[in-house]
Amino acid sequence: MYRDIIELINEKKFGLLKERLMEIRPADIAELIDELEKKDKIILFRLLPKDIAADVFSFLSTSQRKDIVDAMHETQLNEIIDELYFDDKIDFLEEMPANFVKKILSSSTEEERKLINQFLSYPESSAGSIMTIEYVDLKKEMTVKEALQHIKETGVDKETIYICYVMDAKRKLEGIISLRKLVLYDENLLVGDIMEKDFIATTTMDDQEAVADLFKKYDLLALPVVDKEGRLVGIITIDDIVDVIEQENTEDFQIMAGMEPSEEEYIHSNVISLVKRRAPWLLILMLSATITERIIGVYDEVLQSITILAASIPMLMDTGGNAGSQSSTLIIRGLALGEVDTRDYMKVVGKELRVSLLVGLFLGSVNLLRMLLFSSAGFMVSFVVSITLISTVIIAKVVGGVLPMVAKKLKLDPAIMAGPLITTIVDALTLFIYFNVASALLNI
Amino acid sequence: MYRDIIELINEKKFGLLKERLMEIRPADIAELIDELEKKDKIILFRLLPKDIAADVFSFLSTSQRKDIVDAMHETQLNEIIDELYFDDKIDFLEEMPANFVKKILSSSTEEERKLINQFLSYPESSAGSIMTIEYVDLKKEMTVKEALQHIKETGVDKETIYICYVMDAKRKLEGIISLRKLVLYDENLLVGDIMEKDFIATTTMDDQEAVADLFKKYDLLALPVVDKEGRLVGIITIDDIVDVIEQENTEDFQIMAGMEPSEEEYIHSNVISLVKRRAPWLLILMLSATITERIIGVYDEVLQSITILAASIPMLMDTGGNAGSQSSTLIIRGLALGEVDTRDYMKVVGKELRVSLLVGLFLGSVNLLRMLLFSSAGFMVSFVVSITLISTVIIAKVVGGVLPMVAKKLKLDPAIMAGPLITTIVDALTLFIYFNVASALLNI
Repeated sequence: MYRDIIELINEKKFGLLKERLMEIRPADIAELIDELEKKDKIILFRLLPKDIAADVFSFLSTSQRKDIVDAMHETQLNEIIDELYFDDKIDFLEEMPANFVKKILSSSTEEERKLINQFLSYPESSAGSIMTIEYVDLKKEMTVKEALQHIKETGVDKETIYICYVMDAKRKLEGIISLRKLVLYDENLLVGDIMEKDFIATTTMDDQEAVADLFKKYDLLALPVVDKEGRLVGIITIDDIVDVIEQENTEDFQIMAGMEPSEEEYIHSNVISLVKRRAPWLLILMLSATITERIIGVYDEVLQSITILAASIPMLMDTGGNAGSQSSTLIIRGLALGEVDTRDYMKVVGKELRVSLLVGLFLGSVNLLRMLLFSSAGFMVSFVVSITLISTVIIAKVVGGVLPMVAKKLKLDPAIMAGPLITTIVDALTLFIYFNVASALLNI
Repeated sequence: MYRDIIELINEKKFGLLKERLMEIRPADIAELIDELEKKDKIILFRLLPKDIAADVFSFLSTSQRKDIVDAMHETQLNEIIDELYFDDKIDFLEEMPANFVKKILSSSTEEERKLINQFLSYPESSAGSIMTIEYVDLKKEMTVKEALQHIKETGVDKETIYICYVMDAKRKLEGIISLRKLVLYDENLLVGDIMEKDFIATTTMDDQEAVADLFKKYDLLALPVVDKEGRLVGIITIDDIVDVIEQENTEDFQIMAGMEPSEEEYIHSNVISLVKRRAPWLLILMLSATITERIIGVYDEVLQSITILAASIPMLMDTGGNAGSQSSTLIIRGLALGEVDTRDYMKVVGKELRVSLLVGLFLGSVNLLRMLLFSSAGFMVSFVVSITLISTVIIAKVVGGVLPMVAKKLKLDPAIMAGPLITTIVDALTLFIYFNVASALLNI
């Protein structure tokens, strides 16, 4: 892709390169920059007119932005930052070191400085941290015609003009109105008469995940953010919510695999930060798994008298872990999407019991047959293994189904109760059952 | 929530109920219906005016829709189906049994019948299956003023009016133009002069995941779908893409937990379908895990001479599985979001090697210390376990990092190479290393 551009850079044909870049969408230029050598990406970025440069900049990843910031003069950089939408500007400043932010603040007007500081103070993942201030404000006394004229005059710098906001003199949000309505309705109607007064809004401190849920539920394009007094402080648009949804999913994937979540792209993460995110959970799980050592220690005699029992331990543990992961994943996902509720407790237990009984009997029978036909374990040992297998599947599925709901109830993230933790718990239970069934049935 | 409504139903105060329902948003009514008894939800649904009923209907889940369809008269149902947006109608018909669809088709006009049949023929998860036909079409000879007038006259039934489409006489898509431009630009300009000619489009057979990627990359609100000849056949809007994104994520979560993916909500799935989705992978993994039995069988002598070695097998296997899951999850997610590319092969191996060496040494040291202090295993056995632990972590992380990329290269879904499968593979390797290290160092 874009081989010709790399050639143009190499041949230093900057005039032609500039023309060629005009034909490419900002998102594609950003993707191209991601693949270039550091010195080439600086050359290319400097050739962009500043409005396009700002657009491209808003599509770049953190590490790319840092490369560019390092190489740019302060004045050039200020020009680009000025062109950014306010939410992209805040997003960028959040990633930068404190002394860089200070420099930017010192070259801003006092009003803007105040605003930037206010926005930087919203906690990460809050509605405040993803909102923007470039919205269209209308008055309820305006006619539709006047409103459209007002949009025409002020709309060019707004992040969206498709949803407009009506405030009173104290900036309290009174209603919202879509451009759809303004275009479709009679031009002599009053905004105040046709605006939506029973609108959905969020507050600055709400969690971005809850905000995303509102967008999903009501198919919104934009959502107003108000302060405690109901004054409009910003809006959130759907394009940022799409990013939030992917980010929250990534976080769930990472937590479910037993890691500290992070927004850092894998390719650009350094080794130490990857170690720091992975080691703690691995350590906790490793130490928890040592309980299995104790169980095996206690039943050492059973194992010593029939060492063939040891051979089935890995298979039993794996199957238990897998069965538990299936259930916990379904419940964690159901809770995240709002399809499962903590009140559905008994329904989940009932369903998992029935499913696990069927799955367990199926796997147990196959295993019994397999061991009888292909192993030298003999009937009684095969029978003990199969009975344990059935019990393991049942326990794993019920534990896997219930623990995420318990976590939610305790206001913990249900995603913690995924494969790794469930496996550790189920392993201990499996061994306990295994040795007890063995000593009972094999008369050890 | 909405206790008063349930009371109104119980007291059969249908007049008041009807008024109260008018105050509630369709998405909320749909949520309420989800919680009602079957007979109550029918009562409530019948009270809705047909345009609102259609709106509510489009927010309902499959199982809710089936309940309502079962209880409604054909004419009532036809009225509601007529009110649905075309993409919601197709969506609904796809869920219904064939004879129901036949009935609907027989009461449609020939033109509509042809269209419905065409849309039903698009494969599930294709762009064709999520597009709609309610878009605004403009001509390039129109002025901005005429275009706005045309939108005013025809826009009310369109799914979106924010992006409009310009076609030639043969319906070939020539350009797209946003309502933003139409409102902000001079009203005497010609649509043909200001429309976007270099637009992004997709074709009916493209995968919905690829379509979602376009929305994410270019921050789109709507995307035109064209046929092979470049004729516009429909559009896809962002609200449906948000659903696609969640659906694709759900699918990945399920595949990564070793299940057949399904869109069915957990709470509404029946036991047999849950068993069918879970049992096959559990069986495959269980049978694969029996290779560990053979390995233990081969090294039976080692285990018999030092039974204490058996005690650490579960901990080693769990840690290996967890370490592998972490890496595979990061890579699978990176591939899904386009942050990792199959060309990054060597980068991933290099990074995983370095991370796993550090993590492995850390866990190995903690384990050595733990065993020396708290177990009766003695130095050599503790040392064997710790060396195996380090090797396991390294192998697990490299295997976990590489296999998803191999899968992608082989055009398989990388999500298959997640926790369950990685664990099974790593388990076998772990045991193999364990017994070999043990026989070498313990002179067995």
